[in-house]
Formats: sequence, C-alpha cells, structure tokens
Amino acid sequence: MATGTLHVVGVGPGSPDLLTVRAARLIEGASVVAYFCREGRKGHARTIAETYITEGTHELRLVYPFTTEIAVEDPDYQRGIQAFYDRSAQQLAGMLKQGQDVVVLCEGEPFLYGSAMYLFDRLKEQFATSVVPGIAAMNGCWSQVQLPMTHGDDVLCVIPATLPEADLTRWLQQADAAVIMKIGRNMSKVRNALVQSGRMSDARYVERGTQPDSFSCPFEECGETAPYFSLVLVPGRKGVR
Amino acid sequence: MATGTLHVVGVGPGSPDLLTVRAARLIEGASVVAYFCREGRKGHARTIAETYITEGTHELRLVYPFTTEIAVEDPDYQRGIQAFYDRSAQQLAGMLKQGQDVVVLCEGEPFLYGSAMYLFDRLKEQFATSVVPGIAAMNGCWSQVQLPMTHGDDVLCVIPATLPEADLTRWLQQADAAVIMKIGRNMSKVRNALVQSGRMSDARYVERGTQPDSFSCPFEECGETAPYFSLVLVPGRKGVR
Repeated sequence: MATGTLHVVGVGPGSPDLLTVRAARLIEGASVVAYFCREGRKGHARTIAETYITEGTHELRLVYPFTTEIAVEDPDYQRGIQAFYDRSAQQLAGMLKQGQDVVVLCEGEPFLYGSAMYLFDRLKEQFATSVVPGIAAMNGCWSQVQLPMTHGDDVLCVIPATLPEADLTRWLQQADAAVIMKIGRNMSKVRNALVQSGRMSDARYVERGTQPDSFSCPFEECGETAPYFSLVLVPGRKGVR
Repeated sequence: MATGTLHVVGVGPGSPDLLTVRAARLIEGASVVAYFCREGRKGHARTIAETYITEGTHELRLVYPFTTEIAVEDPDYQRGIQAFYDRSAQQLAGMLKQGQDVVVLCEGEPFLYGSAMYLFDRLKEQFATSVVPGIAAMNGCWSQVQLPMTHGDDVLCVIPATLPEADLTRWLQQADAAVIMKIGRNMSKVRNALVQSGRMSDARYVERGTQPDSFSCPFEECGETAPYFSLVLVPGRKGVR
C-alpha cells in the first residue's frame, strides 16, 4: 500500500483571504488536517483556516503538553516539548503509513520559526512531503500598516526578541530594516534595545496584524505587555537604487 | 467625483496558485491592472498573474526606459529611473482622479525590494491605498527546496548581493540564517563572500523558484551566471527552543 503525503501548509498571518490559492484548495480537499493548539483552545492556525475546512474532514488536534507558563530555558520544557513533537510525529506517521495524506496547518510561513518544522524534520526522510509557503506574519503586518520596508540595497534582519538585550541592540544598530518577532514577555528588553540602538523613533508596533481586532501604534506609545501575535517593524533607509 | 483606490498587489514568486485569495479576487475584479515590464516583454508580474486577468480588463504597461544594461550607480540611471517612476505615478494618478481603481501587480512581496513601492511612495498622500502582501521569492524558494530556515532564536538576514564583497562577508559571518537576493551579475562576489565567511558548504542556489523551469543545486556546484529570478539560501542553526 502506498503511503500518504505530508503537506505542511502555511495559512498566513490571520485574515482568511490571505491564504494562497494552493493552500485553500489543499485544505478544502483534505481528508485529514492536523494542527497545534493549547488545551481547551481552537488553535490559531485552525481559526485562520476555518473557512476552508469542509464537513467530514478529520481533525487531528496536537495539544501542547504545557498548561502553565514555563520558560523555554527550563530543561523540563526542552524535554517535554521534544517528547511532544516525537509523539505528534508518530501520530502523523501512523496515518501516513495507512496511505492517508495529512495537511498540517501552520500559522504564517511554516519555515520561518514555524512549529510544524519539527514535524517536518522528523518525517521528511520516511514520507513524501510538500511545503506550501504562507504569507509571513511580518509581511501581513507591514502591508496592513502600509510601511515599505526595504528599498535598494537595504539589509533586512529578522530578530527574535528572545535574544539577550545586548544582542538585540547590536542587531538593531547594524540592520537597515528590522523586524523583531516573539515580543510577548520581552517588551522591556525590546524597548531598551530600541533606545540604545537609536531606532526607537522609527519603530512601529503591530498587534494581531490582518486579524479583525488588530492594533498598531508607534512603539514609543505602546504599553508594557504584548500578546503572542505581535511584532515590531523598523523600516529601512529610503532611496531609489 | 470620488477618486479611485490604488491597490498594490503582490503576485508571489511565480506559480499562479501561490497568489493569495485576496490578490486573485482583486485582479479578477479589476477594471485596470498596471505593471512594470521591459520593451517587447510581457512583464514578470503580468505573466504570474495571467490566470486571473479577465477579458476587458484595461492593461497599463509601465515600460522601463532602459533598453541596454546600465549600472545602477550611473547618474544617468538614477535620473532616468526617477523620471520614469514620476511619469508612471502621473499616469496612475490620472486614472485614480477619474474615479478608477487601479491594481498594480508586483512580483513577490511588494514591500520587500518591490518597484511598486516607488509608485506607492509617490501616490499614498493623495489617494486611498491598499497593500496586499505576496509570498516573497525567498519563501517560495525555501518551500520548494524544502529547506527549513529559522528555528528557535535564529536571526535571519536578507542581504542584497549588490553590496560590496566585504559587507556581504561580514553579514554572512554574523547571520544565523541568510538569504542573498539580487544575485544576477554578482555571482563571483557572492562566491567569494560565502567562502570567506565559511558558509559555502550550507549554501543552496535556487533559480526561478516555483516556476515551471526552476532549478536548484548546492551553491558550490553552480555556474558563473544567474538569471534575474535567483537567490541563495543559507539555513540557520538547528534546535528546539
């Protein structure tokens, strides 16, 4: 019996019409869709893709094992998340071995910090795979706030806010254009780095970009907390080249 | 009379099913589509969007003024291209003033090195605008060759190959993950920078990613010339965070 294909599908930043035509068709035709979610929650990717999931599609929820907040540096987190990805990959492998195609939904762009990479990494040797790119969160956000990012030979740096403050500062000093991802609990660190690098006045904060309840303001005016779906945009130098 | 809206629409990296649903609908419903192209050529963005352009849509070709190759550093190029963007913006303004909506087609992602930004910059104060993100060339390429790019707290640098060799080398040394854009006539410079930064063995060359005639190989194995649609991918460090 032929094994199934693993489709890793980016669903974009939030708005249902920002999925690609290929992603929409794949989801509409899928017999199985899988996605990460938290206990008792629908899952971000599932919510974004909702319009395209047809009746009768089997949904495989991959429920994160942590119900309380735990630091990623904690060895318990590392062990727990690795075991969770192993288990999730085994569940998918079971279906793929039975000849079923599986569509894994992934927020934004799968290969840019997407958790679905950890399933892909575990299954790619054994099964046929396809990867459908999605509009990355940053693209969705800078389009919504209409902020052109890179002209000419600007270098763009995409920087996770989980880095130490000194590293954030150094990257912001060097970058022409910058996107700071994974803001969450790192707001004060990001604020300090923006000040120290001299980039504060150009920095724009965007929360839930392209989603119905999205919000944006100059970073200088924003508060001390940020939700999961938030990032900071620092546009590059201007000029025709 | 109400003025029209300028829609700057990303059409993605090449494959017609990698436009977003929003882009496809906008193009299908457009009365005017505009796009940059070279004399006697169809235009890359026009080719990618072809499926969605309906009969009766007015097409406004914005034909680049240069028929021979000219260096971007040449003052004649700078003057010529600025005047061309001014003229093009005036053409669009004429239609927008008459109340017509205009859809500007843009390869890849408009706000990442897209020429349509130069129209947007000239028209945004005077007219209503919308920006529809597209799958960036790099996203299309790394999905097609199935190369996960950034895990955990990897920093991604997007680097134009038009920079001096020493700058390319420095960026490649520092970046966790890197994308080198605008390869074209800069192949030997890129090759030297990859060697000097110690990143050559991980570098992957992708040509016309997601297009029917696409090609990819380790950078070490590729030739001395590259077409317009080509880039280099250097994946980041691996690891669950």
